[in-house]
Amino acid sequence: MTFEIISEAGSFGGIQGYYKHRSAVLGCDMRFSVYQPPAAQHHDVPILWYLSGLTCTEDNATVKAGFQRMASELGLMVVCPDTSPRGDDVPNDDAYDMGQGAGFYLDATSIPWKKNFRMYSYIRDELPALVSSMFAADETRQSITGHSMGGHGALTLFLKNRNKFKSVSAFAPIVSPTSCPWGQKALSKYLGAGNKDEWVDYDACALLERDGAANVNILIDQGLADPFLQDQLMPELFEDVCAKVGQDVTLRRQEGYDHSYFFIASFIEDHLRHHHKALTT
Amino acid sequence: MTFEIISEAGSFGGIQGYYKHRSAVLGCDMRFSVYQPPAAQHHDVPILWYLSGLTCTEDNATVKAGFQRMASELGLMVVCPDTSPRGDDVPNDDAYDMGQGAGFYLDATSIPWKKNFRMYSYIRDELPALVSSMFAADETRQSITGHSMGGHGALTLFLKNRNKFKSVSAFAPIVSPTSCPWGQKALSKYLGAGNKDEWVDYDACALLERDGAANVNILIDQGLADPFLQDQLMPELFEDVCAKVGQDVTLRRQEGYDHSYFFIASFIEDHLRHHHKALTT
Repeated sequence: MTFEIISEAGSFGGIQGYYKHRSAVLGCDMRFSVYQPPAAQHHDVPILWYLSGLTCTEDNATVKAGFQRMASELGLMVVCPDTSPRGDDVPNDDAYDMGQGAGFYLDATSIPWKKNFRMYSYIRDELPALVSSMFAADETRQSITGHSMGGHGALTLFLKNRNKFKSVSAFAPIVSPTSCPWGQKALSKYLGAGNKDEWVDYDACALLERDGAANVNILIDQGLADPFLQDQLMPELFEDVCAKVGQDVTLRRQEGYDHSYFFIASFIEDHLRHHHKALTT
Repeated sequence: MTFEIISEAGSFGGIQGYYKHRSAVLGCDMRFSVYQPPAAQHHDVPILWYLSGLTCTEDNATVKAGFQRMASELGLMVVCPDTSPRGDDVPNDDAYDMGQGAGFYLDATSIPWKKNFRMYSYIRDELPALVSSMFAADETRQSITGHSMGGHGALTLFLKNRNKFKSVSAFAPIVSPTSCPWGQKALSKYLGAGNKDEWVDYDACALLERDGAANVNILIDQGLADPFLQDQLMPELFEDVCAKVGQDVTLRRQEGYDHSYFFIASFIEDHLRHHHKALTT
């Protein structure tokens, strides 16, 4: 496995880097960012995955979420992948919520998407292997978080890989893609409108109902001034399933906060502490 | 004085807003950002001005510097202006270091620049009056900081208005525009190549030597991996003048840090604490 350094900069005593590699799973070149805390100079450190939302790249959270300060203090490596395969040879769509920038963290099964759009396998297998070969990362201690579409990615990747990730959290996640316009569009195109049986495999609410509660607390922050709250995000659906299956969840409704990175930055410290606790006990 | 709200978002218990107004001084529409800390809901709070560098707008520091957390805690209002007049009717230059995005915080005297390029008067007079009319801001308690070209702006605005600003700090400032290529180009175009007597009025080193030490500590952070360190920034020039005139300065050379916002974010807390101390004693 090879990679290329795009840039590396000092950040809170550690190193904030951007990297590029050829992804065999996605069939294209991919970029990602890695924050190495000062502790990584001395020993392997746990990894926190941060999955971004629609239209984002690896850059948005890296420059806007402000995770480096607390990641430095707690000794966490934070990895931000891109949100989809990229490039002229990769299928795309003019809409912001489909194609490049909108991978939905699933493995597509429909033409033309299935050749490249395999973000589920990329995030679960290929990128962790590369990151732990490149850096002082402890692959046995991983947790996952994300925002919006990336919150959906974090929840579903966690629920289907409970031995791989020690903890999960999310900012304003799409908790039920089968129930909202963003998700219904993506699932019908990536998986096929006639394959609704497969859809539940990428729906956090459905997975929790099917597989039962996980043995961890799930932390979710949701802004009450978020314009997507009622039609796309609907955290009450997740809350209902958690109550039904006995899942421990902390769903915090934050008054005055919208869907932006100003919201994420305001609460990122709590999420890093949540994961640090799970990763060090 | 009127203004338009572009957006407002919750941030660390306060409000991060973007605004637009018609500037009489600059003769164009201007944008700026204001962070209102929670304390501003109860009483007037001090103002910290953050002046950005070449190519930046009001947005860069607002989303990347991470000042909101500590501004919330310390009760500081942080205002980020744009870096020059803007618009189709405003003179420009194809180079990144001249014209729009490169106002150099001076009042130009040469044609075609002098009609619009009056960032010195805009930052010193027009924008503070507007901000204190709009928000719970205490105009008698103002401090100023900035990055690169904005560090030059902060130092020169402070040194020429010692009763207006309580304190000053800078990240990787251009300390002597008369001595570096960026500055020599800007000063020769905005003020005239033949008017070198006027140049010293916008050179922090020359102002300090001419007017003597200010009665405050000046805080400067400079990354040692900054690619502009040797040819453009030359902090040793400022250090030498400070020694000569007895100016109290804390110049911290930070190993491994470059010219980016990852550098600024790493040390912004120290700068906010520096200003808070001066603004509350």
